[in-house]
Amino acid sequence: MIHQETLTKYLAMFIQELSNAGIENVVISPGSRSTPLAMLIAEHPKLNYYINIDERSAAFFALGIAKQTRKPVALLCTSGTAAANYYPAIVEARIARVPLVVLTADRPHELRDIGAPQAINQIHLYGEHVKWFTEMAIPEANEEMFSFVRTTASRAVSIALLEPAGPVHLNFPLREPLIPIIEPSPYADLDDQPSVTVTHGHLMPNENVMLDLSEKLKNTEKGLIICGVLDHPYLQDSIIELAEKLGYPILADPLSQLRSGNFSGDYIIDNYDAILKETQYKEKLKPDVILRFGGMPVSKPLMLFMKSLSDTEHFIVESGNGGWRDPIKKATQMIYCDEALFCNELCKKVNKKENAQWLYMWQHLNNISRSTVIQEIGDINELDEGKVVLELIKGMPENSTLFVGNSMPIRDVDTFFHFNSKKIRVMANRGANGIDGVVSSALGASLYGEPLFLLIGDLSFFHDLNGLLAAKMYQLNITIIVINNNGGGIFHYLPQSSEKKHFEVLFGTPTDLAFEHVVQMYNGNYSKVRNWDDFQQSIEASVETKGLHVIEVPTNREKNVEVHRKMWKHVSMEVDHYLRGDQL
Amino acid sequence: MIHQETLTKYLAMFIQELSNAGIENVVISPGSRSTPLAMLIAEHPKLNYYINIDERSAAFFALGIAKQTRKPVALLCTSGTAAANYYPAIVEARIARVPLVVLTADRPHELRDIGAPQAINQIHLYGEHVKWFTEMAIPEANEEMFSFVRTTASRAVSIALLEPAGPVHLNFPLREPLIPIIEPSPYADLDDQPSVTVTHGHLMPNENVMLDLSEKLKNTEKGLIICGVLDHPYLQDSIIELAEKLGYPILADPLSQLRSGNFSGDYIIDNYDAILKETQYKEKLKPDVILRFGGMPVSKPLMLFMKSLSDTEHFIVESGNGGWRDPIKKATQMIYCDEALFCNELCKKVNKKENAQWLYMWQHLNNISRSTVIQEIGDINELDEGKVVLELIKGMPENSTLFVGNSMPIRDVDTFFHFNSKKIRVMANRGANGIDGVVSSALGASLYGEPLFLLIGDLSFFHDLNGLLAAKMYQLNITIIVINNNGGGIFHYLPQSSEKKHFEVLFGTPTDLAFEHVVQMYNGNYSKVRNWDDFQQSIEASVETKGLHVIEVPTNREKNVEVHRKMWKHVSMEVDHYLRGDQL
Repeated sequence: MIHQETLTKYLAMFIQELSNAGIENVVISPGSRSTPLAMLIAEHPKLNYYINIDERSAAFFALGIAKQTRKPVALLCTSGTAAANYYPAIVEARIARVPLVVLTADRPHELRDIGAPQAINQIHLYGEHVKWFTEMAIPEANEEMFSFVRTTASRAVSIALLEPAGPVHLNFPLREPLIPIIEPSPYADLDDQPSVTVTHGHLMPNENVMLDLSEKLKNTEKGLIICGVLDHPYLQDSIIELAEKLGYPILADPLSQLRSGNFSGDYIIDNYDAILKETQYKEKLKPDVILRFGGMPVSKPLMLFMKSLSDTEHFIVESGNGGWRDPIKKATQMIYCDEALFCNELCKKVNKKENAQWLYMWQHLNNISRSTVIQEIGDINELDEGKVVLELIKGMPENSTLFVGNSMPIRDVDTFFHFNSKKIRVMANRGANGIDGVVSSALGASLYGEPLFLLIGDLSFFHDLNGLLAAKMYQLNITIIVINNNGGGIFHYLPQSSEKKHFEVLFGTPTDLAFEHVVQMYNGNYSKVRNWDDFQQSIEASVETKGLHVIEVPTNREKNVEVHRKMWKHVSMEVDHYLRGDQL
Repeated sequence: MIHQETLTKYLAMFIQELSNAGIENVVISPGSRSTPLAMLIAEHPKLNYYINIDERSAAFFALGIAKQTRKPVALLCTSGTAAANYYPAIVEARIARVPLVVLTADRPHELRDIGAPQAINQIHLYGEHVKWFTEMAIPEANEEMFSFVRTTASRAVSIALLEPAGPVHLNFPLREPLIPIIEPSPYADLDDQPSVTVTHGHLMPNENVMLDLSEKLKNTEKGLIICGVLDHPYLQDSIIELAEKLGYPILADPLSQLRSGNFSGDYIIDNYDAILKETQYKEKLKPDVILRFGGMPVSKPLMLFMKSLSDTEHFIVESGNGGWRDPIKKATQMIYCDEALFCNELCKKVNKKENAQWLYMWQHLNNISRSTVIQEIGDINELDEGKVVLELIKGMPENSTLFVGNSMPIRDVDTFFHFNSKKIRVMANRGANGIDGVVSSALGASLYGEPLFLLIGDLSFFHDLNGLLAAKMYQLNITIIVINNNGGGIFHYLPQSSEKKHFEVLFGTPTDLAFEHVVQMYNGNYSKVRNWDDFQQSIEASVETKGLHVIEVPTNREKNVEVHRKMWKHVSMEVDHYLRGDQL
């Protein structure tokens, strides 16, 4: 068999099997060594593919698609530093548990480590940041190798999906000539059914543990359910049912998908960040039991509150076997099992509780805190970072997606995104919490979840400006709200803000960039708002017309700190007033 | 000792020793965990520091400084994906042998792998792409630890510099609070002399090898000296002296620094790429001996020519012990020693040769090839990628730096950058030949080598647009010539160009970006030239005024291939005419 036939058959079988195993989308960065894979992906009758020239953005774009679709996405690039540019998104995907199948083309063995162009050491390029690495064989055409290549495709997808999900890396050494044969289609006689199907069992909760636990919870009034990042589509109902049975409030992070939806918000506490800033009432708020689901919530006051507790039994439930998301080191039991099964099992074993004093206290605190926040924010006429969230939620249609940047935006969303029934899905890159790649992740998510709104700070927006090329190339519909405080606002909340000497240069880092220019380069619509009417009109206009919309909200870093501090003070006073009373 | 005192003393000692060991420049990306290191670097009386928000650009910026100054540069970033963004530049630095000292701040051990924010696994983050990795200790204040931290700083710099030079990585776990004490200066009572000085010996050539070699060369008329990337400041004279003694022509890559300088160009062959495209005269051009210095030259015809030779003795001389830069696998002897010592030793052992028939042939071929190229190019009125190089060299002042992008620009420079006495230093990222990070590398180089001209393609310019922020922040002076053929021109020279079906989407990848907008955002001067007069005026204007200048030269990918092919045909005819004659 001639070289091109071998190349074509071997790689086409691989790609067919990727598709059979559930890959629907591939993000390709152009290059030479990857030519046969790129052409065969483009030729495949079922695969969608997207070109993204900057590999760093490409990988975050794939991550966004995978998050939104909850399905694995493949990535393809050529050899050399191209592959190294994937690294930040791969690190994020590993920690955030997002399934990616990373394909890198490589020089064959005889061109490695001898100064050949674009040849770098790609073996284990991503170290421990991928779940699985395989060096593929040089293409050969025989049954053994066809089985190898098909099985490897299946395994790669299955390992990426296995909880905790994450990225896998396959490296393809390829020899010239690199052109496959695409006429007639290499897929015509390939089976579109998997050569091997892979099913993963669900982790059942241990029966003895569940019996002990249900006994304990029956007799425990003061319990809290705490939910961090959770993105399973059906888990929410089970958690709410459990809360109702146990009479426990749910402290729900915005990424838990419990702050917006078609369910009762009675048990949802969305203002704990404000409530727990005041630490002097810890004894009254102290739970005897915590049931925790998902990653660690964003809120620092909540984290410090949990960390300060002694004698509280702390159960962490998660389906990602071996995960250990407990930076406060307070877990007393790690329960590895499917979270929904856990809730359902527990619900069967306990009866609805009657005494709800504890629940009322949390609900009441939540209500006074929320109304104080809304009232304080309502009084603000100038543009303010926190108020952007309230105003944005007002303007967002039902069933939309809110992608949130790291650093300040996610904290503001935590504070100001209150329970509502708009069914807004909230996403963020909370694996490693980087400010990099956020634009691309949101654009990837927008492909399968319109309308999509991205709330992002100016430094994070700057970091991934290249991501905007995808919006232009694929006419994506997205509204990006850039909170422009001209630099790193979060540092004003940290101790270095009192060290004036180097502050602006090292931490404030104002860039003074007029983003309208770059938005114009990407054919986007740009508006800089001057007041809240402007803001609402811009949001409305962006929903009505397609394409890329960038709405810049200029704010002031120092002013923002002042406003926040004043608000927290007012909330504390209200909390204080209530908790000092003898209503409890 | 309180935490802050310990933190300050430990880290200040480290930074003092970095400076003592020869670090002069540090590129810092803002972040929280790196606060104490950043503040102490800013406080240091001798260190220069530059803020670069996008860590990918920051690392390439540091690489550019290190290349231009031929001194190690330090990098600092915070924990998390920030550090992963350094990867492409680190990979490039390793292969291109550029000394970098990479400092990453990290969460301490008790916050690792348990879901803490911005905590990723940073141990061996860059795998085998750094020469040395060390996990630093948690700051402690005692003599043993002070010795440790000083020695480690010294070693890090020394390993980065040891040939073959390259990047090293130190990971710093740091606990809160992260603020050091800067009043009074922690450097006041620290010694500014190294606690340990490190000197590396020079590799002396083996005497027996030199004797054998000199005997052989005395009796060998047909020899070629082939020079790839070489950037030692004093090596050029030694190589030219050797060529004169041996009567061997020097096939000099543009990155060998042998195509421009204050020395005779008689021995410099700068048109071998054109000459060797025609393969039918291989027998007449075949050398009996090749002496090769530096990395593999850019020219593909030269590479194929060398690869096709049998019975040619092929000596590779290099000072980077253990390097193996021979993708054609034709080396018959690897001689590890200081290249200048090698040349000098050999010169002592041989007498100047008289018979120069072989040399004349190469000189003559070079002259007819060069004049044909110049004549062909002279006839072109429309904008053309090759002609840009000729026109640019015309306009460049003496002692300037030319930074060259990968893919097509470096190939065009190879063809059209002819020997001259302007002392132009030519640089490119030819470790992994990536199109990424080139803008930042050039900007870093511009800091210590004005005037600097960057010749770059539109995709590579796009890839590192973020790099331009440094030009704005530090008012850097640079002239960027963007060859805008709207996509990937190089693919038109590759076999996939005949596969029309997916070509434009997968390989041509036109972006249709109007770069004037983004240049405006970075306060740059922008001009799009319409003809060669425009071009010369723009170059002149850029030399006269300070700041960022972007000169866009719109070209046509398909037209460019035509023009090149016609020119090569003409050169081949002239070469053919000469070699068919019996002058030889």
